[in-house]
Amino acid sequence: MVRALEWVDEAAVLRIIDQQLLPGQERYLDLATVDAVVDAIASLAVRGAPALGAVGAFGVAIAMQQGAAEGWDPPRLASEVDRIRLARPTAVNLAWGVNQAATCMSEGVDAVLARAKKVMAEDEAANRLLSKLGADWILERVGKSSVSVVTHCNTGALATTAWGTAYGIIHELYDRGCLTMTYADETRPLLQGARLTSWELTQDGIPHVVEADGAASSTILSGRVDVAIIGADRIAANGDSANKVGSVALALACRRKGIPFIVAAPFSTVDVSTKTGDDIVIEERDPKEVLEFAGVRTTPLTAVGFNPAFDVTPHDLISAIVTERGVVEPEKRPDGLIQLSEQ
Amino acid sequence: MVRALEWVDEAAVLRIIDQQLLPGQERYLDLATVDAVVDAIASLAVRGAPALGAVGAFGVAIAMQQGAAEGWDPPRLASEVDRIRLARPTAVNLAWGVNQAATCMSEGVDAVLARAKKVMAEDEAANRLLSKLGADWILERVGKSSVSVVTHCNTGALATTAWGTAYGIIHELYDRGCLTMTYADETRPLLQGARLTSWELTQDGIPHVVEADGAASSTILSGRVDVAIIGADRIAANGDSANKVGSVALALACRRKGIPFIVAAPFSTVDVSTKTGDDIVIEERDPKEVLEFAGVRTTPLTAVGFNPAFDVTPHDLISAIVTERGVVEPEKRPDGLIQLSEQ
Repeated sequence: MVRALEWVDEAAVLRIIDQQLLPGQERYLDLATVDAVVDAIASLAVRGAPALGAVGAFGVAIAMQQGAAEGWDPPRLASEVDRIRLARPTAVNLAWGVNQAATCMSEGVDAVLARAKKVMAEDEAANRLLSKLGADWILERVGKSSVSVVTHCNTGALATTAWGTAYGIIHELYDRGCLTMTYADETRPLLQGARLTSWELTQDGIPHVVEADGAASSTILSGRVDVAIIGADRIAANGDSANKVGSVALALACRRKGIPFIVAAPFSTVDVSTKTGDDIVIEERDPKEVLEFAGVRTTPLTAVGFNPAFDVTPHDLISAIVTERGVVEPEKRPDGLIQLSEQ
Repeated sequence: MVRALEWVDEAAVLRIIDQQLLPGQERYLDLATVDAVVDAIASLAVRGAPALGAVGAFGVAIAMQQGAAEGWDPPRLASEVDRIRLARPTAVNLAWGVNQAATCMSEGVDAVLARAKKVMAEDEAANRLLSKLGADWILERVGKSSVSVVTHCNTGALATTAWGTAYGIIHELYDRGCLTMTYADETRPLLQGARLTSWELTQDGIPHVVEADGAASSTILSGRVDVAIIGADRIAANGDSANKVGSVALALACRRKGIPFIVAAPFSTVDVSTKTGDDIVIEERDPKEVLEFAGVRTTPLTAVGFNPAFDVTPHDLISAIVTERGVVEPEKRPDGLIQLSEQ
């Protein structure tokens, strides 16, 4: 199984696979400075909310190593750690991972590294458990022995520390012999679905087709799929869930068709300090991502782009939020009192 | 104003602007054979339901000219005309335009040409009239002096014989000083929004931003726009409307947000012989359009694509269908008895 990131003890670097180049090229980057970590996050060389949690945790260790080598005072070190925490605004896991590791800073870099490795191991365990819970829930709810699914963006091993979230459920369904077909949205503008999810599905031998994002609604309305499964970058206390832009279109179509819409994420994605989706900051990325493709301009030179990276699906459109702690069903509590925090 | 097509009398050819190359390059193609007409339609060098109506009508004249030069017998001529009629399956206007011209075949090629020019002139007149009707309806319904709109695909002069349908309404709103902002979906896989609509909006000086198709739902849900306006390739008798894939996502989001969703088309797009959207054949195009971008593979080499070119918006999600004959409001008749045929 591919890994999005790995700590290399002998070199004391965080090795990531450069997801900007997949599937054409498998190149690895060794991150040893705060600049390199921040650049890798901002450029999406490494992405995916759970993966960013682990990158954030290892990033604290990298900041400490660099600070020791370059003689940073404590305020400088704190501000460098902040740069990592704030490298992207929407996924809560990044700040969560930084904070997990930062609590160990007084114990030294080895303690921080140990904590980061624990974050990574716990994420994989959470993914594997939530995938079983999600597959169980879907098969019971849909009432078929084999289902077809639609998913958006990439939520597999590349987006996490291992295995995957929404992708993990698809993988689990496949391993049980309960998966008929996967419709993978290409996920413009950065094509995480076409480039990354299709690559992982190909490596895992899982049947799939790639479709334009605009096709997802009619794929659902025409009855081609039984369920939509997506990941999350931040889940508010009331269940409103931020995920890659385009996700809420699937939720709206599922509601119209009467099929379930599932959000799958480790519990670290739940941010009880964010009350509702209205409080989630939506990252707006460089408009060039929409105005160009692979460096080729597709629009008139004077055209302006609007490029929000995420959208928010209101909780009442979500059939189930699946974490390693269990399944909650927000659509049954349209008042938003789903008590995620009490799980 | 740019024209998608023009009959050149002195050369007896149909001159089109090659829409595959826009906005990077303005190249014109002179069509003088049935093969050239069919290729131009299939490759989307010329596209847009109303434009295809006129191309179909002129195509009959081209078939007659070629048949006269090459000595085709009547069955051969009929089968060549059929090839044009069937070059794309979803837009009803293509077959409608072929049929309009075909009724004049016994009167000779000049009569056919005259009929084709009448189709073209009537389409422009219809577009200009429906644009006024649509703008009137929107401003009254929204109740603001200036509105922001979202649109999908291209419905401007390039998609019609002149002026445009959904685009024509946007243009009319702009000319009245009643347009704040246009959100143009890029419209994957062939980027008609990014390449063509943005190009037309730029030429007309109309304020706009280009967004990924996946952003349209949240653009609507976040309150950035007051109305969604799209074109149509075929409108069934009950008001169900086929348009570029991704259109129904806008309709679902508009319903959730409580803002109007408008379908604008010349009345020639209404096909009363198609009872409901279930009877509309959805063209599936070459999967390569999704798997590649400008000849560069974006997916693993073994990946399979699913590439429906259109989707159907059910009539109960449509606030208004605007044609040159007036405005009908399908959402007020969810039983589908909207009497389009009696207008």
